[in-house]
This record gives sequence, C-alpha cells and structure tokens, in this order.
Amino acid sequence: MTTIKTIRVPAEEMQQVFETALLQQGFTKEKAATCAKIFTENSIDGVYTHGVNRFPRFIEYIQRGYVDKDAVATLRHEFGGIQQWNGNLGPGILNALQATDNAMALAQQFGIGCVALSNTNHWMRGGTYGWKAAKAGYVFIGWTNTTALMPAWGAVDAKLGNNPLVIAMPYNNEAIVLDMAMSQYSYGAMEKYVAQQERLPVNGGFDETGALTNDPAAILRSKRSLPIGYWKGAGLSLLLDLLAAILSGGLAVCDIKEQQAEQALSQVFIAIDIAKLGNASAITQTVEHIIKDYKNSIPATENDTITWPGERVLAARKKNLAEGIPVMENVWQRILQL
Amino acid sequence: MTTIKTIRVPAEEMQQVFETALLQQGFTKEKAATCAKIFTENSIDGVYTHGVNRFPRFIEYIQRGYVDKDAVATLRHEFGGIQQWNGNLGPGILNALQATDNAMALAQQFGIGCVALSNTNHWMRGGTYGWKAAKAGYVFIGWTNTTALMPAWGAVDAKLGNNPLVIAMPYNNEAIVLDMAMSQYSYGAMEKYVAQQERLPVNGGFDETGALTNDPAAILRSKRSLPIGYWKGAGLSLLLDLLAAILSGGLAVCDIKEQQAEQALSQVFIAIDIAKLGNASAITQTVEHIIKDYKNSIPATENDTITWPGERVLAARKKNLAEGIPVMENVWQRILQL
Repeated sequence: MTTIKTIRVPAEEMQQVFETALLQQGFTKEKAATCAKIFTENSIDGVYTHGVNRFPRFIEYIQRGYVDKDAVATLRHEFGGIQQWNGNLGPGILNALQATDNAMALAQQFGIGCVALSNTNHWMRGGTYGWKAAKAGYVFIGWTNTTALMPAWGAVDAKLGNNPLVIAMPYNNEAIVLDMAMSQYSYGAMEKYVAQQERLPVNGGFDETGALTNDPAAILRSKRSLPIGYWKGAGLSLLLDLLAAILSGGLAVCDIKEQQAEQALSQVFIAIDIAKLGNASAITQTVEHIIKDYKNSIPATENDTITWPGERVLAARKKNLAEGIPVMENVWQRILQL
Repeated sequence: MTTIKTIRVPAEEMQQVFETALLQQGFTKEKAATCAKIFTENSIDGVYTHGVNRFPRFIEYIQRGYVDKDAVATLRHEFGGIQQWNGNLGPGILNALQATDNAMALAQQFGIGCVALSNTNHWMRGGTYGWKAAKAGYVFIGWTNTTALMPAWGAVDAKLGNNPLVIAMPYNNEAIVLDMAMSQYSYGAMEKYVAQQERLPVNGGFDETGALTNDPAAILRSKRSLPIGYWKGAGLSLLLDLLAAILSGGLAVCDIKEQQAEQALSQVFIAIDIAKLGNASAITQTVEHIIKDYKNSIPATENDTITWPGERVLAARKKNLAEGIPVMENVWQRILQL
C-alpha cells in the first residue's frame, strides 16, 4: 500500500483554481465564481467528499452533458407560499442556491415558504443551503432524493436513496446544521475504511449471508447498506423520496436509477422566517439555554466530547482557514490538469 | 410467571366505555366523544401503547391536574402561513386535532401552513394527526418534544427526548404514514421484551459497561437507550426539540424534564395542500408508481415482507374492526372500574 501524501491548499488558491477550471468549461464569470466558492467552502468545512474530492467528477458531468452548465431553473407553478421549479438539468449548486433564496423570500412574505425543484442535479453538500438560510435568520428544512443505494427493510436489492435531510437554524451568529443521509455510512465512507483496512465503528450493513456486520468490504460486496435505525430510516427514506417527487412533480429514486447517471433529482427547500414569530426576540436566549443544558451532558468516557450538529464543522473551518485545506496530492494534481 | 389473558373488545363498546369514563371526569359531551374516538382509533390501528393501554394514565393525569380538561388553546401570534398557539395545558389530543385543522386551513389559503403549539399535553399517537391530514388531501410533517429519555451521543445522562416525527401523505383513499420516535425502542417496548424474557431484535442501547446490547433489562438499568442511527438520531432529536421550542415559544426537553410530570410540551404541525400543486392531477399516479417499484423488492428471506409505513396499521385496523380490539383482561377490568 503506497501512502498518498496530503498537502494543504489555501482556500483562496483553491477557489481560484476551481474558477479557472470552470471558466475553461465555458461557465460565465458569475456562475464559475459561485460554483468555485461553494466547492471551496464545502472543503473548508471539512466535507471533502462534496468539495475538492468531488470537483473532478463535476467537470466530468459537464463534459458528458449530464449537467447543462448554461441551463437555468424556470418557475413551473406557484401558489401562496409554494413554488415549483424545473431545474432544467442545470448545475445542482446554482439551482439549489436559487431555490434557497426563493424559499427565504416566500418565508419573508408568508412566514413559511416551500420551493420544490425537479429535474436538477446533485447539490453537493446539503448543509450548504442550511448554513446559508440559517445565517440569514431562517429555520431551514430541506432534502434531496438520490439514485437507489439501499434496500428496503427486509429486502436485498437497492430501491431507496440515501436522500440527505438538512435541518438548520440560526445560532450565535453561526448556525446549528444537521446534514444527514439515510444510510448509516455512505459508500464513499465505507471505501475509505476498506482502504485504511479498518472496521466501521458500528454496523453499517449486511454481509452476503444476511448477517449485520461492521466489515465495510463485506457490505460493498453485498450492496446491502444499513438505513439509520434499521426499518425506521428505511421508512424515512421512502417518505422523503415520495414527498420530493410529488411536491416537485419530478423524478423519484426508482426513475433516477434508470437514468444514464445520477441526474434529474427532486429536492425540497422549506424556510421559516423567525423574525416573523411572536417570540422572535427571545429565540437567541432559548437556543442558548437548550445548548447549554445539552453541552452539560456527562461524557461516557474521557474521550467523548458532546457536540451539537455543526459544531465540528466550525472547528474544521477554523483550522482549514488557518492552515489551508488538506487535499490528497494526487487529487490536487488531477484538478490542476483539468 | 402468570399469563395475562387477552380479550377482544368491539370498537364501539370500547369507545362507549371511554366516553362514559370521560363524562364522569366532567368532560363535555363533545370533548368526551372526540377523546374517546381517538383513544379507540389508536387501539383499532394496533397502537395499544397510545390507545387502550394508556387510557388509565390519561384519566390519572386529569385527576392530578396535569391535564386541564376544560382548557382550550388560544392563538398567541400569527403571520401569513404561520400560527403560534398556547395549548393552556388542555388535553393533548384536542389541542393537536385543532392544530392539525388550523395547519390545513392555512395550507388551503397559502399552499403551506405551519402551526406551532406550546404548553400542550401528550398527543398520544402522532400518527393520528398524520392520518387525519393525509386522508383530507394534505402532506403532513409534524413532531412533538417529550421529556428527557435518551443521552446525547457519547454521554450517559438523558438530555434528549424521543421526539416522535410524523410524515404523512395521501395514498389510495388511505395514507402513507411514518410515525417514528428518535429512540430505537421505547422504554415501554423494552419492558415488554423483558416481561416476555426476550432479547431485542437489534441493539437498543448500552449496558452498564458502555457496550452496545440487545438485552432490554441491561438498557433499562443503564437508562442509555440508543438513538436511531447512533449519532444521527441524537442530532435529529436535538434539532426537533430546538425547532419545537423556538417555533412555538414553548418549553424544550430540558425544561419539560423539570416539570412534575411530562406536560407543557411543544409541537409543530406543517401541512401542504397538494390540490394547490401544479401536478395535483398526476400525484396519485406518481405515488402508485413509486410504491409499485418499492413493493417489487426482492425479500431477503421467505419470512420477509416489504411494507410501506402505514401498511401494517391498515392490516391491524382491518383485523381489529372484524374481530374486536385485543386488550389485556386486567387492563380492561381497570378501565371498567374508572
């Protein structure tokens, strides 16, 4: 096993490299800048799988025509606090940012707004939209469907997406952001454990005999990854897909798996404007009160730290901004050659 | 171990017995009828823990003054598609039914509506409100907080609620309804396994040494029940509590655990009127298409059946309406003496 060297790339440099690569693909200056910024921010926040490590595949998807770099979302239907948009297979990041903006605008007007987006592409990190809305003063609930990655409970063949769910809210000039896929581990995470010759910390699926296991290689062979909470996460995954498909009028997981690539996804963006609540002035105090009690938990061992969703992201952000973003050297070399 | 005999009580008889008991407690005829109907329906649907088995405790809570039988919810604040109500410690079922009605009315007007309810009592089965809204043609997303029942991830002391989340949508003149607590097993379920001298089907918590276990007695001793998906369900539980508290202006789990009983809960009811969507006429077809693919899964063993959330409820409903509701004889005797 050869060890892959990790280098640290300053955030500004990474963003510039991404932007240049996107301009070379024919992106407009504004779209290139926005996509480069999000891929960089995802990397700064430690979500490398949907940041720097994913960037080459984004370029590949543009080159293969799965992502239409020039397409913009169009409004299909609206009623009160609801809008339905067609993403026209444009870049998932740009469509999702716009959908988040629109959900916030609806929430300003109606207190709560819901934008459903069909026919879009991978939004990369769901947390991006949660952080954005929460830092602007909104509660955010959003999710996407995906291709089929996980069997129904009691089944062997993949029918369910991992359908990440994002719930976010403002906190202390930053945000509390839960960004959670329905599978206990992603395939990417399991491949990483295999490469490091490690077991998963908890069971992540079934082996080929149908027994629960924390052996990532066995799960990659069986393709039976585990939903969070067993039957519960399987049910939640199904419901999120059903809702994404009916609210957007777009494709469901069972349709997406028939596509040439994971494209034409359906997504939901719900925003609530907390400034419009009767208790708006007391919310900061309420959140601090809850988090204080939570952080006051008694750790199980001296190695345990009690963190709220998003707290580790803030720590990664601070470190990566100070020291540069860790990137595997071969990945960075490949990006520089794009 | 003495075996407790189970009898079958016809639904009409059960509802009449509940109604009589509630009238004796001084409920108005209308309120008694509504509460009796919901407790009976929960039992018909097989959710005995929040139906017939819970009824004596509901009466006890009224007698102790935790539930104010005469209190009605009052509107605290509204803006567009959002309403905030104070439940005034009235019966949780009545407050939650009203909140569901109000969320649907808001959704009719604005496409999407959100009612947040503070200071209410246990809503019994969350699915009640999902089935109601879905059968009326709405997508429903709702949740409640609870008292502290589960440690934060990496901690030993209970700080998190099991905060059931309900997601529902219309299907085939019935509904698809996910009704899911954040703990893998409730304490009630684990006590039942102990009584039956059985192990849990999957790990349900930690034993006193901090090891994951499916021994329900060990988890009851450690009081470290397991969130669904480990750290993921713990995070989701925290976010649902934060949102319930800030959207309603009511108490959080950390406040509820300081109450004399599990009371003064915070709840959220979001409804979306699918008739207001541009693709309203195609939704039935979309849902049937998704469910058909899902049911087409290959079962892992010949004993596995692939069901969607709510499907088993419909089967229980059919059986219990035909054969009567199964009730432990001692529970029924106690109810008849109330």
